[in-house]
Amino acid sequence: MKHKVTFLPDNVTVSVDDNTSLYRAVKAAGVYVLSSCGGKGNCGKCKVVIKDGTIESGKSRSFLTAEEADRGYALACLSRVKGDLTIEIPPESRMQAKHKIATGAKTDELLKHMQSIGGCFESRISRAYIELSPPTIDDNISDFDRLRRALDQAGFSASHIHMNYLALSKLPRVLREGNWKVTVSFFNVTEVLEVLGIFPGDATKTRYGAAVDIGTTTVVVYLVDMTNGHIIGTASTYNSQVKNGDDVITRIVYATERNGLKELQDLVVGNINTLLTELAEKNNVPQGLIDYIVVAGNTTMEHLFYGIDPQHIREEPYIPVATFFPLIRGKNVGLRIDAQAILYAMPNVASYVGGDVTAGVLVSQIHKQEKVSLFIDIGTNGEIVLGNKDWLVTAACSAGPAFEGSGIKFGMRAMEGAIEEVEIDPKTYDVNFRVIGDAKPIGICGSGMIDALAEMYMNGVIDQKGKIREEIGSKRIRRGESGLEYVLAWRVESAINKEIVITEVDLDNLIRAKAAIYAGFATLLSQMGMTFSGIDKLYIAGGFGRYIDVERAITIGMLPDLPVDKFLFLGNTSIMGAYYALLCDQLRHEAEEIARKMTYIELSVSRSFMDQYLSALFLPHTNLEAFPTVKKELEKRKLS
Amino acid sequence: MKHKVTFLPDNVTVSVDDNTSLYRAVKAAGVYVLSSCGGKGNCGKCKVVIKDGTIESGKSRSFLTAEEADRGYALACLSRVKGDLTIEIPPESRMQAKHKIATGAKTDELLKHMQSIGGCFESRISRAYIELSPPTIDDNISDFDRLRRALDQAGFSASHIHMNYLALSKLPRVLREGNWKVTVSFFNVTEVLEVLGIFPGDATKTRYGAAVDIGTTTVVVYLVDMTNGHIIGTASTYNSQVKNGDDVITRIVYATERNGLKELQDLVVGNINTLLTELAEKNNVPQGLIDYIVVAGNTTMEHLFYGIDPQHIREEPYIPVATFFPLIRGKNVGLRIDAQAILYAMPNVASYVGGDVTAGVLVSQIHKQEKVSLFIDIGTNGEIVLGNKDWLVTAACSAGPAFEGSGIKFGMRAMEGAIEEVEIDPKTYDVNFRVIGDAKPIGICGSGMIDALAEMYMNGVIDQKGKIREEIGSKRIRRGESGLEYVLAWRVESAINKEIVITEVDLDNLIRAKAAIYAGFATLLSQMGMTFSGIDKLYIAGGFGRYIDVERAITIGMLPDLPVDKFLFLGNTSIMGAYYALLCDQLRHEAEEIARKMTYIELSVSRSFMDQYLSALFLPHTNLEAFPTVKKELEKRKLS
Repeated sequence: MKHKVTFLPDNVTVSVDDNTSLYRAVKAAGVYVLSSCGGKGNCGKCKVVIKDGTIESGKSRSFLTAEEADRGYALACLSRVKGDLTIEIPPESRMQAKHKIATGAKTDELLKHMQSIGGCFESRISRAYIELSPPTIDDNISDFDRLRRALDQAGFSASHIHMNYLALSKLPRVLREGNWKVTVSFFNVTEVLEVLGIFPGDATKTRYGAAVDIGTTTVVVYLVDMTNGHIIGTASTYNSQVKNGDDVITRIVYATERNGLKELQDLVVGNINTLLTELAEKNNVPQGLIDYIVVAGNTTMEHLFYGIDPQHIREEPYIPVATFFPLIRGKNVGLRIDAQAILYAMPNVASYVGGDVTAGVLVSQIHKQEKVSLFIDIGTNGEIVLGNKDWLVTAACSAGPAFEGSGIKFGMRAMEGAIEEVEIDPKTYDVNFRVIGDAKPIGICGSGMIDALAEMYMNGVIDQKGKIREEIGSKRIRRGESGLEYVLAWRVESAINKEIVITEVDLDNLIRAKAAIYAGFATLLSQMGMTFSGIDKLYIAGGFGRYIDVERAITIGMLPDLPVDKFLFLGNTSIMGAYYALLCDQLRHEAEEIARKMTYIELSVSRSFMDQYLSALFLPHTNLEAFPTVKKELEKRKLS
Repeated sequence: MKHKVTFLPDNVTVSVDDNTSLYRAVKAAGVYVLSSCGGKGNCGKCKVVIKDGTIESGKSRSFLTAEEADRGYALACLSRVKGDLTIEIPPESRMQAKHKIATGAKTDELLKHMQSIGGCFESRISRAYIELSPPTIDDNISDFDRLRRALDQAGFSASHIHMNYLALSKLPRVLREGNWKVTVSFFNVTEVLEVLGIFPGDATKTRYGAAVDIGTTTVVVYLVDMTNGHIIGTASTYNSQVKNGDDVITRIVYATERNGLKELQDLVVGNINTLLTELAEKNNVPQGLIDYIVVAGNTTMEHLFYGIDPQHIREEPYIPVATFFPLIRGKNVGLRIDAQAILYAMPNVASYVGGDVTAGVLVSQIHKQEKVSLFIDIGTNGEIVLGNKDWLVTAACSAGPAFEGSGIKFGMRAMEGAIEEVEIDPKTYDVNFRVIGDAKPIGICGSGMIDALAEMYMNGVIDQKGKIREEIGSKRIRRGESGLEYVLAWRVESAINKEIVITEVDLDNLIRAKAAIYAGFATLLSQMGMTFSGIDKLYIAGGFGRYIDVERAITIGMLPDLPVDKFLFLGNTSIMGAYYALLCDQLRHEAEEIARKMTYIELSVSRSFMDQYLSALFLPHTNLEAFPTVKKELEKRKLS
C-alpha cells in the first residue's frame, strides 16, 4: 500500500510505502530537515508539523514540549506514514539558503599572499604547443613516435614521456585535424611526463582547474584560470551528507550500512558537480576543459569522497586507510570534468587531522617561522597545530559540534535567523541581540553562544560551573522541561512563536566543548614543555572562527588569555591551501612535507588531556590565574 | 514490416525488417557464412540456398553458375529479405569447426626452449607474502603506511611503492580478514612497484596469466600457471571479425564505418573472453585470478583490439597510431579477468610488421646469431625478417590472402573438407588428393594449392606463366565461366555435388601471391647487398607455414632454392613469443629491443621490389638459374 506525502512549504509530494519512516520520506522528497544524528532519534532536531493525515509516532522522549505536541509537532525520524499526509517543515527545522559560508578572499589578495610565500604558476599539469613535420613515405614512424620526436626536439626528454590510452586513441585524429600543429597536456608524475590530452592547434591559453574544500558541513569550489591563477568564480553549498548526520562519527556509522559509503560519496560528488556546473555555465567555461582538481577535507571527508571505507577511523586505535590518497582520474569518483583530469587530495596526517589542516598550515606558514605559533581550525571538530620551522605537533580536541548547534536546544548554524551577538544588561538582565540577516531570530549560532556564555557569566546569571543562579530573581530565568533555562528572546521577538532559551543542559554542553579546545592547546604545549607565554601568534582558521569575538572567547576560557593582537584570523584556509597547491606544484610539495612533518598526538587516550579537560570545565578555568584579564574584569565588576 | 528468417542446418530464426540484406540477417542470427570482402559483393563466397520464401536479388555477376541459380543459390550480401524465409547455408559456405589451428607445442618443450634462450620465471607481476604487526594506540599509522613499512622491512623500498585506488579500497578489509597476514601483488613499472592487489593470507601459489595470439583469422589462448610456467590449457577459435572481411585492409575499411571500430574490438575481445571462460571453467581456475595477459597480433589486429583507429595504416604513407601500446588494465578493453589485470601487447615495428613478428623473432632468436637468417611468417600476410645479432631488416610482402582461400574459386582455409595434398599423374593427368579429416572435399586450402600449382607445372598442365596447356588434351581441362579450368575433383568425389576446379584466374592469383613472397626475400637481401647463398637458416612460422611441402614451395618459386635442411618450421611463434614474454620479463624486454632494432622497408613503394616481383611472376622464376634444383628436375622429366 502506497501513501502520498506532501511537504510544505516546498510543496513536494512523494509516494511511499505504508509504514515508511517519515524521515525516509523527507529524504525521498529531497527536501531538507535538520538532523544531527542522521535519523536515529537522538537529537530531536527533525521536527515537522503534521498538517493533515495520520502518522504512528514512536517515543519522542523529551524532545517535544506539550505545546508543540498540541500544535501537531512530531519528530520525522520517529514517525511512520500510515496514510496520505500533508507535512509542514517549520522554520527551525529548515536549512536556510543564506548561510555565511566563508569562500575566502579575493583573487588579488590570495595571489599576492601565495606569491609572498614562494608560490608560482607552475602547476603539476602543463601544456606545450608543438609543430610536427607531416609523415612521408620515407619518414613513416607511428603517430606517437612522431610526437615523441617532436617533443624531444622541443626539449622534453622523449624517454620520459608516456601516453595514456585515451589520449592515444585521440592522437591520429587530432594530429591531422590540427594539421600537425597541436597542444599537448602533460601530467608530471615521478620522473615521467604523462600525456594527458592532445588538442589541435594552440590550446595553451584554455586551461582550467578547480580547488575544492569538502567541509563536514559545507562544500566550497573555486574555478580557476590556470594560465594566470585568476579565480574565475567561487560557489558553495551544504554538504548533502548532512542529512545522514552532522558530524564525522555519524557519517562513518552511516557508511558502514548497506550501500551507505556509496551513497555518501555520491552525495558529496553531486554537490561538487552542481557547483562546478553552476560556475562553468555562469562563466562560459566548458566543464570538460577542467583538467586538474585539488580537494581538501578532513580525513573522514576524504575517505568518503574517494569511496574508501572509513570505519576504522572511529574505533580505537583509530586507523585511517591512507593519509596520502593515490592520484586518480576525477571521473573515477564521478566528477564531471575532463575524462583525463587528475584528482589530488591534500594529504592527511591521521584519523582526526586531515588535508584541510595541512592546507591550513600551508597558508599560515607556521612551519617556516623561527618562533612557535598555534594554529586552530574551529569547524565541526577542532584541530590544533603547534610548532615552528623545526617541529610540528598536532591533535584533534573532539570539541564536538556544539558550536555548530548540535546538542543545543536552539542551536543552529550561522545562517539567516541566528542570534550571532548577545549583550546582557548587568542591572536588568535584559538581553540585546543581533540576528544574521536582521531577521526575527529562530535560534542561536556559535558566536552567539560564546557571547551568551560570556555575558551570562560576567553578569552573574551563571556561576563558574555554568549553573544558572536562580537567586538573582530575573523573570528571564525559569524552569523548563530540562531544568533551569534563560530566555534570550521572548515569544513576540522570535520568528517561531516561542521563546528562545539557553538551558542548563546547553550550558553544560558548551562548557564541555570550550574545555576540550582549551585542553587541546594546553596538552600540546605541555607535551612540548611550553606555556602559553611562548606562543608568538595564534592563527584561527575556519568559517566559524571568523566571527568569534576573541575577548569573549577568552572570557569563557575557550581561547588562552593572550594579548588580542596575537590572534590572527585566516578565514577558510582549507580552500585557500587547495587553491595554492592547485596553482603551484612547489606548494603542493610543501604541503606533503608539512603532513609528513606533523607528529600526531591522540588526545582521547591521553591522561594529561583528561586532567586539562577537567580543569577547564569551569568558567573560565579552575585556575583563574591563567586568565588574568578575566580575573581583573571580574574584580572590577565586583567593585562597581 | 518484419520477416522471419530461419537458417539451416543451425535452425536459428531471427526477425528482421523488410528489405534487410540477407547478409545482415546472417550476422544478426549469429550463424557463420564465409565472406572475404565483408559483404561488399566482391568475393562471391557468401553463397546460401533459398529453401523457401522470397528474396530480391542483386546482380550476382559471374559468382553463381546457371546450375547453382537453378538450385536456389544466392549471394547473401546481394539479397534482400522480402518475406519469411528458410535459408540453408551449404557446406562450402560454412565455417568448419575442425580447423587446424596451430596452438604451439607442449609445455615441457616450450619451457625447455624458453629456458635455453635465457628465459626465467620472473614475470612483470609478482607476489609477496607479508606479516604485519597489528595497530595499537601507540602505533596508529594508516593501513597503507603500515603495509609500506612492512614491505620496507621485507626488502622492498617503500618509497618506490605506489598503491592504486582499487587496491586501496580493499586494503582495510583484507588486512583485518587476513589477521594482518596478507599477500601483495605487485606490478613493476619503471622504477615503481605498483600494488595491484591484496589478498588475505598466503596467496602466492594462485597466480594465473594468459598469452593470446590475435591472428587475422584465428585467435589462440594459453592459460598459464604463473608460479611454474605450466600451460594449463590451450584453446582457439576463429577471429569473429572474419565476418567483416578476410584481410586487414577490409577490416580497416570496416573500422572507419559508423561504430565499426567498436564492433570489431568487441568481436575479438568476445572471442578471447569465450576462450578464457572455457579454459578457466574446464581447469577450475577462477577467471578473476588472471592478473596478467600478453597479446601478440599484427599491427592492425592490435589497433582493433585496443580500439585505436587504424585508418592511416591503409593509406600512404602507412602510419600506425603507435607501435608500442601503453599498458592498460585488461578490463578497459572488456576482458573478463581480474579488474586490475595488466594488458601488454607485443610491440609492433610498423604498419605491416606487428607484434606477432616481434614475438616470432624472439622465438627464432635470429637476433642473437652470428650468421644471417631469414624469418618468414606466412599467414594472411607474409612478413619477412632478415638479419643477425647486429642488424635486422623487415618487410611485409603483401602477398594477400590467396593461400588462405581468398580470390580462389574453391579456396578455403585449412579445415575439414579441404584438399591439402595433390599429386598429378604425369601420364594420365589423373589427380590424387588428400583431404583434411579424410572427408569428401569441399575446397582446397593453401598447402593443396601449392601442391596443385607445383604438380600442374611439373607435369606440363600449365606453362611457366600459369596458363593451362589446352593442347595436352586432358578431359580434366575444360572451359568454364571464367576461362580455362582444371578439374581436381569430379562431382561424384566432392561433398558439394559439383566439380572442384582450379581456374586460370586462380592460378594467376596464386602466382601473384608467391611472387610477392619471393620478391620480398629478394628485395631485403639486395638491400643488404646479399644473395640467398648467404642465408644460414630460413625459419618458417605461422599456422599455414607448418603444412607446407618445402620442395613444392621451391618448385613454384615461393621459397628460395636452398638445401631443405636450412628450412626450419617453428609453428605459431606469435603465441609462443607472447607466452615467453608473459612468463619472463627479461624476454619481454628482449622483444622490445627486437622491435626497436628492426628497420622497416616499405616494399609497396620500392622500385626494386616491383622489379623483383615482375621477375617472379613465372614458374618458378624468370631466371631459372636461381632455381637449380627445379631446373634439374625439369630437365630430368624432359629426358624421360
